[in-house]
This record gives sequence, structure tokens and C-alpha cells, in this order.
Amino acid sequence: MYFESDNAGPVHPKVMAALLAANEGYAHAYGADAIMDEVRARIRSLFEAPEAAVYLVATGTAANALALATLCKPWETVFCTAPAHIQTDECNAAEFYTGGAKLTLVPGADAKMTPEALRKVIEVEEKRGVHGPQRGPVALTNVTELGTVYSARELAALTSVAKNYRLATYLDGARFANAVAASGASPAELSWKAGVDAVSFGGTKNGLMAVEAVVLFDPAQAWEFELRRKRAAHLFSKHRYLAAQMLAYLEGDLWLEMARAANAANAQLAEMLRATGVVDYVHPPDANMSFAAWPRAAHRRLFDAGAAYYIWEGALEGDDLDEMLTARLVCDWSAREDDTARFVKLVAG
Amino acid sequence: MYFESDNAGPVHPKVMAALLAANEGYAHAYGADAIMDEVRARIRSLFEAPEAAVYLVATGTAANALALATLCKPWETVFCTAPAHIQTDECNAAEFYTGGAKLTLVPGADAKMTPEALRKVIEVEEKRGVHGPQRGPVALTNVTELGTVYSARELAALTSVAKNYRLATYLDGARFANAVAASGASPAELSWKAGVDAVSFGGTKNGLMAVEAVVLFDPAQAWEFELRRKRAAHLFSKHRYLAAQMLAYLEGDLWLEMARAANAANAQLAEMLRATGVVDYVHPPDANMSFAAWPRAAHRRLFDAGAAYYIWEGALEGDDLDEMLTARLVCDWSAREDDTARFVKLVAG
Amino acid sequence: MYFESDNAGPVHPKVMAALLAANEGYAHAYGADAIMDEVRARIRSLFEAPEAAVYLVATGTAANALALATLCKPWETVFCTAPAHIQTDECNAAEFYTGGAKLTLVPGADAKMTPEALRKVIEVEEKRGVHGPQRGPVALTNVTELGTVYSARELAALTSVAKNYRLATYLDGARFANAVAASGASPAELSWKAGVDAVSFGGTKNGLMAVEAVVLFDPAQAWEFELRRKRAAHLFSKHRYLAAQMLAYLEGDLWLEMARAANAANAQLAEMLRATGVVDYVHPPDANMSFAAWPRAAHRRLFDAGAAYYIWEGALEGDDLDEMLTARLVCDWSAREDDTARFVKLVAG
Amino acid sequence: MYFESDNAGPVHPKVMAALLAANEGYAHAYGADAIMDEVRARIRSLFEAPEAAVYLVATGTAANALALATLCKPWETVFCTAPAHIQTDECNAAEFYTGGAKLTLVPGADAKMTPEALRKVIEVEEKRGVHGPQRGPVALTNVTELGTVYSARELAALTSVAKNYRLATYLDGARFANAVAASGASPAELSWKAGVDAVSFGGTKNGLMAVEAVVLFDPAQAWEFELRRKRAAHLFSKHRYLAAQMLAYLEGDLWLEMARAANAANAQLAEMLRATGVVDYVHPPDANMSFAAWPRAAHRRLFDAGAAYYIWEGALEGDDLDEMLTARLVCDWSAREDDTARFVKLVAG
Repeated sequence: MYFESDNAGPVHPKVMAALLAANEGYAHAYGADAIMDEVRARIRSLFEAPEAAVYLVATGTAANALALATLCKPWETVFCTAPAHIQTDECNAAEFYTGGAKLTLVPGADAKMTPEALRKVIEVEEKRGVHGPQRGPVALTNVTELGTVYSARELAALTSVAKNYRLATYLDGARFANAVAASGASPAELSWKAGVDAVSFGGTKNGLMAVEAVVLFDPAQAWEFELRRKRAAHLFSKHRYLAAQMLAYLEGDLWLEMARAANAANAQLAEMLRATGVVDYVHPPDANMSFAAWPRAAHRRLFDAGAAYYIWEGALEGDDLDEMLTARLVCDWSAREDDTARFVKLVAG
Repeated sequence: MYFESDNAGPVHPKVMAALLAANEGYAHAYGADAIMDEVRARIRSLFEAPEAAVYLVATGTAANALALATLCKPWETVFCTAPAHIQTDECNAAEFYTGGAKLTLVPGADAKMTPEALRKVIEVEEKRGVHGPQRGPVALTNVTELGTVYSARELAALTSVAKNYRLATYLDGARFANAVAASGASPAELSWKAGVDAVSFGGTKNGLMAVEAVVLFDPAQAWEFELRRKRAAHLFSKHRYLAAQMLAYLEGDLWLEMARAANAANAQLAEMLRATGVVDYVHPPDANMSFAAWPRAAHRRLFDAGAAYYIWEGALEGDDLDEMLTARLVCDWSAREDDTARFVKLVAG
Repeated sequence: MYFESDNAGPVHPKVMAALLAANEGYAHAYGADAIMDEVRARIRSLFEAPEAAVYLVATGTAANALALATLCKPWETVFCTAPAHIQTDECNAAEFYTGGAKLTLVPGADAKMTPEALRKVIEVEEKRGVHGPQRGPVALTNVTELGTVYSARELAALTSVAKNYRLATYLDGARFANAVAASGASPAELSWKAGVDAVSFGGTKNGLMAVEAVVLFDPAQAWEFELRRKRAAHLFSKHRYLAAQMLAYLEGDLWLEMARAANAANAQLAEMLRATGVVDYVHPPDANMSFAAWPRAAHRRLFDAGAAYYIWEGALEGDDLDEMLTARLVCDWSAREDDTARFVKLVAG
Repeated sequence: MYFESDNAGPVHPKVMAALLAANEGYAHAYGADAIMDEVRARIRSLFEAPEAAVYLVATGTAANALALATLCKPWETVFCTAPAHIQTDECNAAEFYTGGAKLTLVPGADAKMTPEALRKVIEVEEKRGVHGPQRGPVALTNVTELGTVYSARELAALTSVAKNYRLATYLDGARFANAVAASGASPAELSWKAGVDAVSFGGTKNGLMAVEAVVLFDPAQAWEFELRRKRAAHLFSKHRYLAAQMLAYLEGDLWLEMARAANAANAQLAEMLRATGVVDYVHPPDANMSFAAWPRAAHRRLFDAGAAYYIWEGALEGDDLDEMLTARLVCDWSAREDDTARFVKLVAG
């Protein structure tokens, strides 16, 4: 009963097989190998962006921080939501990589911003000429940190606001595959066709060992990105093993197959949890994450039985057994139906 | 005939096997898994340092930059040699991670500094109170970037100078295993027993996919290092796959076995090259790297035959077929005798 | 009718006289002159802090950024209010000087935070171990950016919260003299006796040309501050001219005399504006600044007559002559009664 | 007998008078005042550069660091000499402001680089693609830190090398006036006509209180410079007092008059010292600084008599009374002939 995170599960066997297959003889280092050539071509094709610059890094924070630093000057501010990973979970990586840019929070429900809220915050931010932080890029996440999904149309409305102020948009796609699976839109429709300037195409949370692709739709920024990646120690020498993972991910749309499996597992979990009658959903479970509340007593039963997940709001300790505590439950490609059934049974009591 | 770099060769099969074995079910992320517990204990034991803080990162530059940043204030200067990797091959990563420290070059032959040279440069550096850069850590590399090896005694003489000025010493051990194999000294003798405060224990250049351990002998710096690693996006979520590589590396002293193989291959190469009578060695081939010169004509024969290596000094283009061009040749654990023989034959003509 | 800012007025004649007097012959540079010795002793005495480290810089932003950088690690977050000068008016200087720390906003009315609000935000901020920004110093401003004043008691309540979490407190005292004048508390009572760890004692907005003192009550941080000041290019060679200004400021409590004059001018302005019946005060005019609203028509009369001040909320352009627009009015030591009378008459219509 | 530094002497009376004159009533802050408009126009005219962007800051280090940061990316390296002020006397300000760029030292006698030396170092620096630091701007100083002067022709030869590699050139002109006075070339001839992209026009070492102008010949960089200046806390609110100093400096070529006086005083000092027969000049005293050696015994006589200057090489302590110790002697506009005569007499014995 593991719903702790989509980075706690195993790597897909096909990916392991690809790593083994890549482990033959010598290969040029630093991304100059043949597998990476193939990866580059396939990602451009997948995103319908033949000119895009494509890079691999090993962590989602590296993808975010490097892409933002490429889009943002040190004296600017990044517009993001309060639950944004770059704001809450990266220990100031964005500030470090940008050389000291600020993050300005845009209010919104379910970790999503609205065009109106974004416009308002942008308007307020820069009224002081040289004295205040200057307006910088808009940073969105899809799937959001609260498990919700932006449609292509919602994204386009936000990037349109950004473009009105000549601001770039970065999309944190740590769970991009799950957003594609959930929305039915294509990778291009969820990125550049919706006005996004750079996106990370995450793999680590979706069955890879440790690979994220960064796709810059404006290739003019490619060389700066490469220098930033190297300077930040994120250029891998034995790069073929990043490339091999990503190629396996692309092969036969494994990325989509795994994302669909994870989303489906979460949908089933949500349906079953709601059917218990004791569970309140806090955010719509659009993709592979659930934020749901149920009584403390049931949480205790679950942990006693070995379930693994985070309590998002509230504390397991406490006298009131009926108090509702919110859990975050995350499904990955390897989620198992019997685990779900057992979990829900324990919630129901 | 691949002598390009020890990061161009394959991963050792035992390491791949360990990755497969680790790929079962769920595991806590970020280094809180059982394999990492084992790694921590074993590295402390290997280094005879029961209190040491042990961390894994995926690139040598990350190990260097994070360790130096932990040891060095932004207004200080790091003492290193001119060929030091941190000076020449990391695109200002040290400057970035330290927040703008300087690197001051200590002269010396074969990428090694002497105590006298170090003392002199330290003396010169800080005569200006608050105006000049302040003296910071000494950064050594073993095996050096030019393939030479410091003995434990030589290291101790250098750290002793550093200690006279109350300066810390960091040892870039991207090829630490090769230094151990070459010197016959133990890991402890080549590190803290010789006065080193922090060392990287490299794996990527010695048969791993992408793992370096950072060992801080003063655990008081542990938490700062952890925050710096996270902030720099070098904390892996699926950390078990780093740990599994490192555990396989430690198991049965695979690290030493591979380093010995690489050093032996290089020693044989050097012996055979010298026997040709047309080769001049530029630096002593103490470990797994050769810097040797031979006529342009022979270089051309080699490249025509598909040999892979770097020309370190001079250019392949040129009219004078007798001109001596210096090559860098690197052997890893997978170097093959028949390749060596064929290579030397082509040099000999 | 100049109410634009307290940095638009002239330097007090006694300060100019002191500059002239200091302009004799040679003097040691960088703060090693006799005038600075005197300044150091007097500020320690004024603050009843015989051990304090005392430094001069030329801008308020330099004082804030250097002091915060000394108190805050790059992976931490500074707690401040939304209107804080460091948040809105320093173009990311705090982020730059700290090496990429974050600013976390504490809600509150009139640019003041309450202990409850501060505690809540601190509690929320750090729940994620190494992943989130770490808790850093609390940054207060007194007089606040909205013209209100913290009492010594209010400050103590806030620093007490900070101390519960072992966090330091910095006080931006760009208008510290006005706060002393307004509150009747002593410099010590408004700083270290109220739990403040470092304070800027501003002069530029109160009749000096360009000097702020930074007072660090913990002298252990002195050398780091000196290095940061030098590295940031804020150490003046002809430092005697900073010291001379500050000495004149301290002499005969000129600082307090000027602050009282500015506060009195503002109090009179507020009384007269309120008496017009058409003016709404937006924040309490505790010291030398007024934030007050009146109809657009009156604003137009004022600007036509050459008045100088900022419209804080709203725009001079617009059809509705009755719409209330908020002005910021600032008085300095040189404010003149006849200007005030003329200004109020134009507001009244 | 004060030869310690040109920043230890007094401000010229005309400059003090200008400050007093500027101290009337209100003036717009941050450089939007009428005096600054006049300064901007006059500096453009003086440099024959009608499009240039002109800014004032208060310290030479600020001028250097801000200009270099505007010309240099964090992953680049600045080419300068070993005695360069940015290398030895700014506590890593260049590294801080550029966000972690490196400084690469170009060898040369008397703190001057030659085109050949520069070309060689540039060639060596960047052979490693993304791995090494990238080539950045060339930074020259005129008058150099060792008192020598580049002619316009020498400057042009160096910037020509820089331009071959598409690198910008920055000129640290802390003693630019002295270079103009020494070389007989015009400000334009010693800057943009010689290929310089940005220059500081120093005043603090030449009779001002604390003002340096930064002149960017490419106005496209103006806004970035303004943001960098603000973010670094170097934008003065009461900016009129910087402008007033600079205007007095320009008025009637006071800058040139003072520089000529300082150079003449140094020339006389050098002539008289050489005439003693016991003094060796270490560097040519081209402008207002002497680096000269004489026996320890004479140094002791001087210090006993109250002379103030730096011993540059060697130590006052020591048994050998005949040992030659090198002094640095600096003359400013206020140097007095009787001081010089007395000083030389003490050297002669």
C-alpha cells in the first residue's frame, strides 16, 4: 500500500533493459552519442517542434532551475502559485540559479492560477521603475502540485496574459505525461501551441530512473542553457545512460502507457474512496494524485497496517478520532489493484 | 582502440546487476532507503572514519563544487594548480557554487604543487586586510589531471602548510581509486590521515554509471552540505539507484579491482610505447593516464585506423610529419590488451 | 510644496559645516580616521551597547542588504511584510546580497506584522526538511513603509516569536530617528532591548547627504560584515566624509531635533488635512509620512500649482472628479509651515 | 609628508563650494535633477560620445564591478593583469557582481599587458567547448596600478586583439585624468577611439569626495546597468550631491588641472629622488605614483619623522640597514613642494 510518491516506485523493466543494452563498449561522452541523437529527433517529433533545443538532466529541480535561469534575469521576478514546487520544495534553487531573482505568488484555487489573477499580480508588481523587481517569466506546473490539470485552453489563456506583457512562460512538466494522459491533448497542444516557451518533459516520476528532458522552443537560448547546465554540474559524462532511458520512454509511447496506468489507478482509488462515504476530496483528482480527507481513526488503521503516504494537513497524533486529516496519495505506473482495495477497505473501517 | 576518457567506457556488469536487483517495489526517496544506510556504513569503514558524513552525487563537478562551497566563503580564494579540473574544466562551477570565490593558481610541475610553492602563494595572497581576497581552502586532485599521483607523504606535507594558515584541504578524488591502487596507501592514508578535510570518492570514471561519494570528515558541516546539495538540484529522489551502484562498487572491493585493471593497462601501454623508441613521455604515467608525444605521421595512422583519444598539445593538421604531438591516453577497467597492442603497433609504424 | 520624499530635501547646514571642517589635510582612508573613532564611540553610547560593531554605508539599501546577508544563509527565507522596502523597492538587492535567499511575506495591516501572524507564517514555512527554504531572520522596519510606528513593546513581542524559533531580527531603521521621536522610546529600547540583533540608523532621509550606520549588537559578526561591505563596493576610501556627517548628526542630538521637526510638520499637516473634511487617512500618520485620500479634482489643483508628491493609489487621469485618490506625503526636517498651509488650502478647494 | 594614497588627501575647495551651492531646497532624487542633466551632457561632450550612457557611483570598485558585470556573463573569464585592482584589491567584487565569473591573468611588466601576451592567453583559455570558462571581456587600467601609463596606441593594439575574438574591453579609469595628463591624449582617444567599450572616469582619487562616472559607449547596455546599480545598492537617493561634485570637476577642466598638479608633483619627486643616488625606480613613474627602492635605514628615518606611505616590498623590521625596500608614493592635487623637499632630504640622509 505505497502511495507516498511517484518517485518511490520502481523503474519500468523496459527501461532497465534499455540501460543494459546501452552498456556495450565505448560511447562519446556528454551527449555526443548516437542514442542521444535519436532522442533529440524523437522529442522534436513528439512535440512537433523541429527546431527545438532538447537537453537531458537528472532531476526535476535541475530542469526547473536551469530553464528558469535561462528565461529570467536576476533583477526580475517569477510569477508562480503558492504551492509551486519551485516555491516550496526546491530549497531556493530558483533563486540560486537565477542569481537572485524573486518569486511572486499568484493566488488561485487548487494550485491553478486564473488569467485575471495573473494579470492583477503582474500589474501590481512593476510600478516603480528601476526600484522594484522587474517582471519576469510566468512559471506554471502541469499536472499541478495539487493534482489538478490545466487544459490546453486554460494554459493558452495564461500565456496570452504573459505575452501581453512580453513575458515568457515556463512549464514545469515533472508530470507532463500524466497531464497529456488526463487532458487528451497532445504534447504540442499542452506546450508551444498553448504559448509555452520552455517545458520540462519529466520521466523520473513516471517510471524512469532519473531523467528529465528540457525542451526550449526557441533554439536561440540553446547555448546559454548548455553553459548553465555545465556550470551547475548537471552535464553527465556518461550521458548515454540518460539517453537510453529517455529513448525507452519514447519507444512505443511507453511514457503515455505508464502515465495512463497511473492516472487510471488514481481514478479507481478516488472512485472507491468516495464510495466509502467517509472521504472528502480536497482537490479534484484530475491525474495521478489524490488529496482527500478522512477521520484520524482510519489513518491510524492504515499506518498500523503498513500503508505509506503523507498526511498533508493535520497530525496523526491527537485525541479526536473523528477529526478529518488530509492525505496526499500518489499512484505511479506500478500501482496495484489489490493494494488499492486493501487501502480503501481500511479507510472504510 | 578507445583511450579517449575513462568516462567513455561501459559500466561494470556487477554494477548493472546491482541496479536490476535494487529495482524491486517501493523504496523511500532522497537517501532514506536501506541500501544507502549500508553504503554509509561501508564508506565510513573503508575510510576508517566512523563519524564522517557521506553523501552521493552524480557528477564529479557536483562533488567538487558542493564540497568547496561548504569549505569556502565567497570572499576567499581557493588554492589550486593551473591544470586543476575546477579551474579548467568546470565552466566556473566553483565560482558559481561558492557565490563568487576566486581561484588562485599555485605553480608546479606535472599538476602537482610543492609545499614551498603553496606556502609562497599563500603568503603573497593576503597582505591587504579587508581589501584583498581572503585565504581559503587548498584544493588538490589525486590522481592529478596530468596522470601523476601524490603519495600520502606528499599530501601530508601540503595539508601541513594549509593547517599552518588554518586553511582546510579538499581532495578531488574523481580518480581516487586509481590513486589508492597506484600508491599502495589506504583510503584513510590518502585522505584524513594525510590531513585532508573532505574528499570525493569517484565512481563514474571507474566503472559506475554516475556516482561520486563526498566524504566530509568533519560531520559539523553535514547539514550545510545537504542544504547546498538540495538547493543545487543534486539531491536525487530515486536515490536508491545511486546507492545500489556504490554498494556494488564497495562489495568485494570492486572499486580497487577496476582501478588496478585500469592502472595495469596504462602501465603496459606505457611500457610498450616507450619500447617503440619514438615516444616521449611528458608526465610520469603514475596511474591510468598517459601524456605522451610521438610524430604527427603516427597520429594520422591511428586516427585513420579508428583510434579514439585526445591530442593534448599540437594539431593533427600540419605539414611536418615528424613534429611531435602530445596525446592524452586514458585506460579504464575495460581496456583490452589487443587494443593496446594494435595501438602501439600503429605508433611504431 | 514638496512632500515627495524625505530624500528630496536639503542637507542640514550643520552637516555641511562639518564636511567643510573635515576637509583639512590628509586622513587615513577606509574608516581608520579619528572622526570615525569618535563616531563609533558615540553610537555605542547612544545605543547603550559598548560592544556593538558600528559601520557606515552610503545608502539604505546597502545597509539592509549587507546586514541581512550577514544574518541569513542563501537557503533561508527572510520574514517581512508585503510593503517592506526590501521586498518592493530594492530591485532584489536582498536576494543578490544573500546569494539567493527568499523573502516570505507576513500579512498585517499598516505595514506592521503581529506576533500571531508572524508565528503562523514561520510555522507554515518549514515543514519539509531539506526540501523547503529554511527559516531565516525576521526583518522589520520602523518607521514602517506606510508611516506607522512600532512601539518598543510591539517590537519585543515580535522578536520574542523570532527567538522561539532561534531566528535573528533585523530592523530597517531608515527612519529610525523618526521612530524614536514618535515613540518616546530610546534607541536602545527600540533595538536591542526589544530583542533586535542588528539595526540601521538612517541619516540620508533625515538631513544627511548620504550616510547610514549599521549597528550589529553581536560583534562576532563584525569581520564578516566588513568583508561583505568591501566585496560589495560599499567601503569608502575617503571615509572621513561619511564619518563627519554622522558626527554632526550625533552632535547635540541633531538627529532627534530634525526627526522631531519632520514629525511635527507631518502632524500639523494631518491635523489640517483632516479639518478640511474631505480627506480620509488610510494609515495612521504616526511619524513623518501621511497616506491620505481626497478627490481627484483637488489633486489636479495641487499639481497645477506645482505641488510635488506621489499618488499612491489611483491615477490622476480619469473622468470622475470626485474619485478619491491616495497620496503619500512625506515631511523632512526642512518642511515649511507656509507650504503646508498653501497645500491644505488647495486640497480644501 | 603624506604619500600614502591619492584617496587620503582633501577635496578641492571648488568641489566643496559646489556641494554647498547644490544644497538649496528640494531636488528630484535618483539622478533626475537638473545638475545631473548637465553632467550627462558635459561628459558626453568631453568624451565626444553623444550617445554614451553616463552614470555616477561613489566608489571605484562599484564602477568596476558594475561595468564588468554588464559586459561579462557568469560563465566567462575576464582577462586582466596580476596587479589589476579587480584582482588584488576588491575582495572578489568582480566575482560577486558578475555572478561568479573568473579572472584570468595576462603576464606583463609594469602592470601592462602586451598584445602578444594577451593573444596567447586568450588562445589558451578556450579550447574545451562547454567545459571551460568562456572568453569574456578584457579589463585594462590606465593609469595602471603600478603607476605606468598606456598610450592611446598601446590601448588600441590591445583592444584590437580583443575585437579579433569579439571580446569587449573595459577600462578602469580610477586615475583616468592622470593618464590623460600624462599621455597628452584626449579622453576620447584614450577610450572609445582606442576601442574601449566602457570606461570609468574617476574622481575620488583626484580631488572629489566620492564620485566616479561610468561611461558606456554602447547605450544598449544602459538599462541593464541601471538595474544592476540599483540592485547593488549603488543608486543614490540624494543623487544631486554626486552630480554637483562631478559638475565642479568638469567645470573649467578642474579634473585636468588637478591631475596635472599631481603628476607634476610626482615627476618632481622622482627627479629629486633619483638625484640622491640612493634610489632605484622599480616602475616608470609615468603619472602620479612612484615605486622606488632605497635602504632600510632611510625608511626608518622617514617614518620616525612622520612620513606616511606604504612599503610595497620588504619589511621595515630587519637588521640589514642597507637592504633596499620598495615604497609606493602617491601624489594628489594637494601635494606640497616643501613636503617633497623634506622627504627627499630624509631619503638622502
